[in-house]
Amino acid sequence: MTLSLHAAQSIIAGALDAARQRAAKPLAVVVLDAGGHPVAFAREDGASLFRFDIARAKAMGAIGMGDSTRVLAERAKGNPIFFQSVTAVVGGDVAFSPGGVLVRHAGAIVGAIGISGDTGDCDEECALAGLAAAGFSTESEQ
Amino acid sequence: MTLSLHAAQSIIAGALDAARQRAAKPLAVVVLDAGGHPVAFAREDGASLFRFDIARAKAMGAIGMGDSTRVLAERAKGNPIFFQSVTAVVGGDVAFSPGGVLVRHAGAIVGAIGISGDTGDCDEECALAGLAAAGFSTESEQ
Amino acid sequence: MTLSLHAAQSIIAGALDAARQRAAKPLAVVVLDAGGHPVAFAREDGASLFRFDIARAKAMGAIGMGDSTRVLAERAKGNPIFFQSVTAVVGGDVAFSPGGVLVRHAGAIVGAIGISGDTGDCDEECALAGLAAAGFSTESEQ
Amino acid sequence: MTLSLHAAQSIIAGALDAARQRAAKPLAVVVLDAGGHPVAFAREDGASLFRFDIARAKAMGAIGMGDSTRVLAERAKGNPIFFQSVTAVVGGDVAFSPGGVLVRHAGAIVGAIGISGDTGDCDEECALAGLAAAGFSTESEQ
Repeated sequence: MTLSLHAAQSIIAGALDAARQRAAKPLAVVVLDAGGHPVAFAREDGASLFRFDIARAKAMGAIGMGDSTRVLAERAKGNPIFFQSVTAVVGGDVAFSPGGVLVRHAGAIVGAIGISGDTGDCDEECALAGLAAAGFSTESEQ
Repeated sequence: MTLSLHAAQSIIAGALDAARQRAAKPLAVVVLDAGGHPVAFAREDGASLFRFDIARAKAMGAIGMGDSTRVLAERAKGNPIFFQSVTAVVGGDVAFSPGGVLVRHAGAIVGAIGISGDTGDCDEECALAGLAAAGFSTESEQ
Repeated sequence: MTLSLHAAQSIIAGALDAARQRAAKPLAVVVLDAGGHPVAFAREDGASLFRFDIARAKAMGAIGMGDSTRVLAERAKGNPIFFQSVTAVVGGDVAFSPGGVLVRHAGAIVGAIGISGDTGDCDEECALAGLAAAGFSTESEQ
Repeated sequence: MTLSLHAAQSIIAGALDAARQRAAKPLAVVVLDAGGHPVAFAREDGASLFRFDIARAKAMGAIGMGDSTRVLAERAKGNPIFFQSVTAVVGGDVAFSPGGVLVRHAGAIVGAIGISGDTGDCDEECALAGLAAAGFSTESEQ
C-alpha cells in the first residue's frame, strides 16, 4: 500500500482537530511516505519557523530508524555519543523527542507523521489521534 | 496580512482542482509565507519524488528574487552565468521554470506558490487558478 | 511490490555479465528502492572513485524525475538553465547521462538502476541487460 | 593488496549468513576500500532507511581513525567533547557504535566493513564472521 494524498490529508486534519480540542500551541504537521518524502504538510497560524523542519526530522527519524521518536529518544538517553553521531550521519534528518510516529498498514511501514509545536507528549498525542481519525492502527507504537 | 493556513490550503485545493480539470500530470504544490517558510503542501499520488523540492525552489525563488519564475527564467536565458551563480549562492533555493508565483495582498507580497509535475506552463496555469480560486489577485504577475 | 535484495543482486549480476561480454570499462552499479535508498551496490576492480556517486545520481535522478536519464539528458539539452538549477535544488542527486533506468513492476516504479564507468550508451545497455536478466520489463523505457 | 569486488562480496555474503544464523534483525552491510570508497553494499529486506548511512559511517570511521568503532566508541565515552567535534569535522563520516571493523591483509589496512541493523554487538559479530568467512584475519581487532 502506498500512502495516498487523501490519507495524508485525513491524518493531518485529525491531528489538528485533536490539537484544537486540547488547546495545544500552534503545530506543524507533516506526513511522509515510506521513502521519507513529503506527501502533505500544514503549519498552523502562529507556529514558529523551525516547526516544519523539526516535524519533518521527527517523521524522517522514525522511518529511518524504524521506531517512534519516543522510543528513539529513550534509547538516545542511554547512548548519547552514538545518537549524536547518527544525527550528523543523516544530515540532521532526526529529532529525538516524541511526536514522530510510524504509519503502518497490514504490518508494513507505509509512512510516518511528525508533529512539532507543543511538548513532545502533546505532539505525539495529536499524531496518534490523527492516525486513529484516518483509520490507521496505532497499537504497534505502544 | 499574514498568509493563513486556511488561505494556503484554499490555494492548494484550487490549484489541484484546476490540475484535474486539465488532466495534468500528478503535481506537487507548496505555499510559502513571506519569509519563505512552508505553510502547506500537497503531493498528488504518482508525482515523482523531486517534485516537492522543485516546487519549493520555484516558490522560494519567486520570493527571493521578487518575481515569478516565468520572469526569472526569461532573464536567466539572457544572462545564464549570473543566474547560475545565483543558484549556487542561494544553495539551490531557486528553479528557473514557470510555476513559481507570488501571492500578493493589497500590493504587498504575503507569500508564494510553487508547482512542479507537468510542463512549466501548465504548472503556472494551475498556480494562477489556485490563487484566483482563493480570492487573490494575479494581475501583478502579468 | 518492494524491490528485494535478491532482485537487486540479480539485476547487478546481470548487468556485470553484460559488461564483461562487451569488454566494457570497469563499472559501478547501484540499485535503489522506490524511495531512492540503496538496496545493493557493486564497483568493479579498477573503476574510478566517483563512479559510485555518479551511478547513484543517475538512479536517483531517474526516480526523482520519473524518467530514464537518457530522456532527462535530452530534455536538459533544450532547457539547460532549468536543469542546472534542478541539479542544485536536489543537492547533486541527478546526473544527466544515459545509464539511469527505472525498475517497473506491474506498471509501478519499484526502484532504479544506475551505472557509471563506460560511455552513457554502454552504461545504459548494461542496465537494460541487467533488468532483462532479472526478469524485469524494459519496454516502458523505449 | 587492493580489496577486490570478489573479496568484498564474499565478506558481505559471510556476514549475512552469520546474521541469518543468529536471527539478527535485517542488516545493511557495506565494504569500503582503503580510501573509504564503497566497493559493495547490501541492505536486507526490512532494514530501515538509515542503515546504509550508519553502516557506511561505521566503516568510514574505522578507516578514518584507524581503529574499530568498538574501540572508538569506548574512547568517545571518556572524551565526548573531542569526539563530538570529530563528528562535525568529518561531516558525519563516523558513527560511534560497534560494527565498523578494519579489513587487514599482511598487516596493512585494505578496507573496512560496516554493519547496522541490530545491536552494535551483534552487528560487530556479523562483521567479524564475514571477514573470517572470506579468509581475512580478525585478530588485530582484539
